[in-house]
Amino acid sequence: MATINENYLKLKAGYLFPEIGRRVKSYADKNPLQKIIRLGIGDVTQPLAPAIVEAMVKATQEMGISQGFRGYGPEQGYDFLLQAILDHDYKNRGVQLSTEEIFVSDGSKCDCGNIQEIFSLENKIAVVDPVYPVYVDTNVMAGRSGAPDESGRYSGFIYMPAEESNGFEPDFPKETPDLIYLCYPNNPTGTVATKERLAEWVLYASKIGALVLYDSAYESFIQNPSIPKSIYEIPGAKEVAMEFRSFSKTAGFTGIRCAYLVIPKELKGKTKSGEAISLNQLWNRRHTTKFNGVSYVTQRGAEAVFSKEGKPQIAQQIQYYMENAALIRDGLKKQGYTVYGGENAPYIWLKTPKGSSSWEFFDELLHKVQVVGTPGSGFGPAGEGFFRLSAFGKREDVQEAILRIQKI
Amino acid sequence: MATINENYLKLKAGYLFPEIGRRVKSYADKNPLQKIIRLGIGDVTQPLAPAIVEAMVKATQEMGISQGFRGYGPEQGYDFLLQAILDHDYKNRGVQLSTEEIFVSDGSKCDCGNIQEIFSLENKIAVVDPVYPVYVDTNVMAGRSGAPDESGRYSGFIYMPAEESNGFEPDFPKETPDLIYLCYPNNPTGTVATKERLAEWVLYASKIGALVLYDSAYESFIQNPSIPKSIYEIPGAKEVAMEFRSFSKTAGFTGIRCAYLVIPKELKGKTKSGEAISLNQLWNRRHTTKFNGVSYVTQRGAEAVFSKEGKPQIAQQIQYYMENAALIRDGLKKQGYTVYGGENAPYIWLKTPKGSSSWEFFDELLHKVQVVGTPGSGFGPAGEGFFRLSAFGKREDVQEAILRIQKI
Repeated sequence: MATINENYLKLKAGYLFPEIGRRVKSYADKNPLQKIIRLGIGDVTQPLAPAIVEAMVKATQEMGISQGFRGYGPEQGYDFLLQAILDHDYKNRGVQLSTEEIFVSDGSKCDCGNIQEIFSLENKIAVVDPVYPVYVDTNVMAGRSGAPDESGRYSGFIYMPAEESNGFEPDFPKETPDLIYLCYPNNPTGTVATKERLAEWVLYASKIGALVLYDSAYESFIQNPSIPKSIYEIPGAKEVAMEFRSFSKTAGFTGIRCAYLVIPKELKGKTKSGEAISLNQLWNRRHTTKFNGVSYVTQRGAEAVFSKEGKPQIAQQIQYYMENAALIRDGLKKQGYTVYGGENAPYIWLKTPKGSSSWEFFDELLHKVQVVGTPGSGFGPAGEGFFRLSAFGKREDVQEAILRIQKI
Repeated sequence: MATINENYLKLKAGYLFPEIGRRVKSYADKNPLQKIIRLGIGDVTQPLAPAIVEAMVKATQEMGISQGFRGYGPEQGYDFLLQAILDHDYKNRGVQLSTEEIFVSDGSKCDCGNIQEIFSLENKIAVVDPVYPVYVDTNVMAGRSGAPDESGRYSGFIYMPAEESNGFEPDFPKETPDLIYLCYPNNPTGTVATKERLAEWVLYASKIGALVLYDSAYESFIQNPSIPKSIYEIPGAKEVAMEFRSFSKTAGFTGIRCAYLVIPKELKGKTKSGEAISLNQLWNRRHTTKFNGVSYVTQRGAEAVFSKEGKPQIAQQIQYYMENAALIRDGLKKQGYTVYGGENAPYIWLKTPKGSSSWEFFDELLHKVQVVGTPGSGFGPAGEGFFRLSAFGKREDVQEAILRIQKI
């Protein structure tokens, strides 16, 4: 008899974004004439930059002729892309890596979700609360947790609250973790880690023998030059951290799918008997066995992100979104809202007014002014009383949303 | 301390194809002037069909303009592709399915590798020997096996030998399995399952409460109209089987990446306490949590496989490869080889001459006549003494390879 993985039954009702989708659809079906502005799910709206389109069209045409056709590529990514990543994302920040330390994939959601497979089920994981749900859910599915409590926290996980009272900068946990998920610039709070704070994390992880899973998917939105874009800007980080990067938000690839994972050769896990094992090799075995590489066309598009033509086009898109962020931030502040984030990140984390709950505020915004955001409590109980707005909308929608929110 | 998943350490040295790659590279480095013909890894060589190129170029250009841009798509695939799949791959074979029963993905390797996650570790898996290594390796990595024995078989798995003596048609196993991996047309032996035989499998699975994981990635190469292309052509199969399909070999998508998995709503797994759980819902949770959909551009390309222009172009490619298969089959037969497959499948399974081992024959072909194939033993101990040649080469290479092999 085929029996199921019962860990799935521990999962709470649904992934956050489908629930938002359900509520929005239900409202829209009943109110078909209302124009809904969506600043909820962090999805980009600017079209692909011309240099990317050009590169992808060229690559597609290559695939249509005998001499240009390419079948299976290297599972880890083509050298042309690996090299471009090294040169433009790392060398210019003083970080030396080799192509064998980069694994190109079809998304950071996949990488963040799959990476836990190479670790034993005994590892204690630590996550910030509020947090990107994928870190948590994939560990529940694998069997590293017990059931959730009423607040939605799973037993067996270490939660590190990021709250107004600590400036959304979580303390090191009391209990000792083995795997620590960190995300900077942070989703959902929009906060960043200073070089000093990141160095403390690296030191802490090194001291307790833990591993940092560093999600840096939003690094391109960092405006302040003193804020590190990569954890490898911190000395010693190669021994304690892997890093997740994505083209999704940087270059409008949410519908195109390309990301990468950095696992330095220095990074080791241990067997129970204490033998050190290369995590780079372990992941390589996972990646080559369960994955077959990213589309050649997509990889040529990603390469163009770093080209002479592509770079300024991408920079312009980032600037556009950061102007949106400023508009939301300043607009809400003027209306009396308490607002965080949005300065080095595309997310604005605002305090819900009059002590209303996150979902109450969600419903109020949807029903009264037809603006969709993301309830903070959807990211964890410490997000209760907060609300995330994304800066990825179109300018006119962002402006209109601010005017509408004023009406509440 | 971060500890690793020690199941990975049980895996044999490496995935088959990297080992072939290593030997070929080593030979090529020492003999740079020799032209090597590769009929080993099952990778296509014909360029993308014009209708596919056109659709992908158009989709890329759409993504470059504001009104045409699409961000995150549905994780399960766009309706336009789901509908095309239903209409062209199933309705015309008399199989009724709904769009909610299809999950578009970036490859059957990924689907075949990931599907085991939704099942408990206690399930007993059965595989044919020889077999596509991904079914086995991913279950080892998950922890469903013990260590391998000297022949390479893992303890805890049920192996069903497909040998010359049983016409490469494995018997039902003596021990009772929970999950049965079947692949027809078969990789590597090139054999097919008749309607009668498939009906016996469905009945058997139904009787013992097992689930069939049916890999139908090569269905488009079936020439004999009486051979089923889908397991759902067998009454009752929706209750016992899921089906893996791919655009890789059908339409030259090995470098583009698109496939799909069919999980009928009738299909259930059980909890240990006996409660029936929808596998469609379980996989949907997995798919939406760890995957973010296939590139819009790729999905438009896949849709074109079924278009009025695309269909005959694809049919022509399939015919080209099947003519290759006939050339290899007939050519080797004339040379006195014992040859199987290649009639409804793009693989030729030949008996190594003079009782030489699979890897001996591999080395002989590589070193003496510079032809690369795949050693049968790489697919399992029952493949020893056999050798796989792929029909996916270019015509001139296939012809040249046959002439060269004659020299041995």
